[in-house]
Amino acid sequence: MEVVKKPKEMQTKAEEWRKSGLRIAFVPTMGYFHEGHLSLMREGKKRGDVLVVSIFVNPLQFGPSEDYARYPRDLQRDLQLAQKEGVDVVFAPEVEDMYGLNFQTFVEVTELQKPLCGEKRPGHFKGVATVVAKLFNIVKPHVAIFGLKDYQQYLIIKKMVEDLNMDIEIVGMPTVREKDGLAASSRNAYLNSEERKAALCLFKGLSEAKKAFLAGEKDANRLLKIARSVIESEPLVRLEYLELRDPDDLRPLEGEVERGLIALAAWVGNTRLIDNMLLGEDYRAEDHAEG
Amino acid sequence: MEVVKKPKEMQTKAEEWRKSGLRIAFVPTMGYFHEGHLSLMREGKKRGDVLVVSIFVNPLQFGPSEDYARYPRDLQRDLQLAQKEGVDVVFAPEVEDMYGLNFQTFVEVTELQKPLCGEKRPGHFKGVATVVAKLFNIVKPHVAIFGLKDYQQYLIIKKMVEDLNMDIEIVGMPTVREKDGLAASSRNAYLNSEERKAALCLFKGLSEAKKAFLAGEKDANRLLKIARSVIESEPLVRLEYLELRDPDDLRPLEGEVERGLIALAAWVGNTRLIDNMLLGEDYRAEDHAEG
Repeated sequence: MEVVKKPKEMQTKAEEWRKSGLRIAFVPTMGYFHEGHLSLMREGKKRGDVLVVSIFVNPLQFGPSEDYARYPRDLQRDLQLAQKEGVDVVFAPEVEDMYGLNFQTFVEVTELQKPLCGEKRPGHFKGVATVVAKLFNIVKPHVAIFGLKDYQQYLIIKKMVEDLNMDIEIVGMPTVREKDGLAASSRNAYLNSEERKAALCLFKGLSEAKKAFLAGEKDANRLLKIARSVIESEPLVRLEYLELRDPDDLRPLEGEVERGLIALAAWVGNTRLIDNMLLGEDYRAEDHAEG
Repeated sequence: MEVVKKPKEMQTKAEEWRKSGLRIAFVPTMGYFHEGHLSLMREGKKRGDVLVVSIFVNPLQFGPSEDYARYPRDLQRDLQLAQKEGVDVVFAPEVEDMYGLNFQTFVEVTELQKPLCGEKRPGHFKGVATVVAKLFNIVKPHVAIFGLKDYQQYLIIKKMVEDLNMDIEIVGMPTVREKDGLAASSRNAYLNSEERKAALCLFKGLSEAKKAFLAGEKDANRLLKIARSVIESEPLVRLEYLELRDPDDLRPLEGEVERGLIALAAWVGNTRLIDNMLLGEDYRAEDHAEG
């Protein structure tokens, strides 16, 4: 496995691979790997001849009061895990090599970035779309793999790829959960043991809503109420949003729901977590999405 | 010569060329070719194994009160001229194939788009950057050639390519002028014979300033005054802006100037024209610019 730091070196390598007919699979990450990341890498191994994983904590997607500085980092451990998964190249650039002094070009997906996390984290998805556009141009992938825990991010990247005619297949992979159901996240490392236990109510709330849906409850408000009551019974957790939206375009759903995304963000102490579940379709249906 | 209408077909062809090791040169245009366009095509022939010219009047870069609907179009004549120049593929997509119903992704170069034409045409350069990013992803060029009459556009594209790590060389070519000095422009077709004569004052004003500069006048205000007095003596012409700016980052220049871009926009009747000249360096120096 090779570790590449310089964007130009990564780009030259990618162009050589493409010229020699190799299919490039790409998993962009912020590092501090958990099982979710590893599942993306395994999918990448299946879908490409060479697999590139990027590790870059992107300052552009953090607000001024957010956790950019303290975001967990452990490059040595990440490299060991990537090597075990058979990753060919880890691309781990420095901030100053990604954003020069006079950097001023931004990519925005104007509608999909508005609701949910976009409303609570202004500029976040602009930072995401911009860095992913850059990484795509550097790594030149044929296929890129994203986790559906970040469902809104996944939709935004798919839309960017479609709107800007990027010749890249976008694959979304199901949320990986810890044994008790908590969605795997690098930010789980922030939780103390009491918070860790409390955080489980997020999965439980979503699961209760999904169970009710599968049992025949289709009313949007009642489904949300079921999830909310589970989560609000946990005093250490404060819901930021809990919404039921269309899984394709994120428009809000009301009344009777045949198919929906139930998505939330919540604060557990000083840690902000997100989670979601699809109602009325299986995650696996998303695997074939193409840009 | 082949004419391709569908983005996906163009992209597939471009990918095949790249795989077989061919270097793709690209000239993006809005059609209605004049000698300026032809000079870009000739440069493209030198710089690539295959030459693609796009013809697309991009609605996104026109304001609501601007001339999108009446912008001159003559595809048959353009195809004949392109064929004569040895163009391999003309890519001429339909608007609805470039911008689907739910299109919502935009690229912006936030600083360089602010002054000069950007101030007078809000949204114009966002539309330009967005369509050029799309065209680059469709045509997959190794090198793209732009005219320096649209100097600000050239700088914005170069900056977009640099900031977003697009693996494309950007070449700027000198403004082509008609025999008397008027900058070649598709919009010259709007001028009646009286306006055509009056429009020459733009070239004359810039030339007088350049002559003074070469004779030793370095004061920004006096250089601008020289150009302005020539242009303002023409009653059919109304200056929109006339400015002296740094040719690299477009910051305004004051006092003594060693190197500058003198740029203007002006209305001749109902026709808006732009022109510029570089002081203190030759246009040819720009030919080697790379993204």
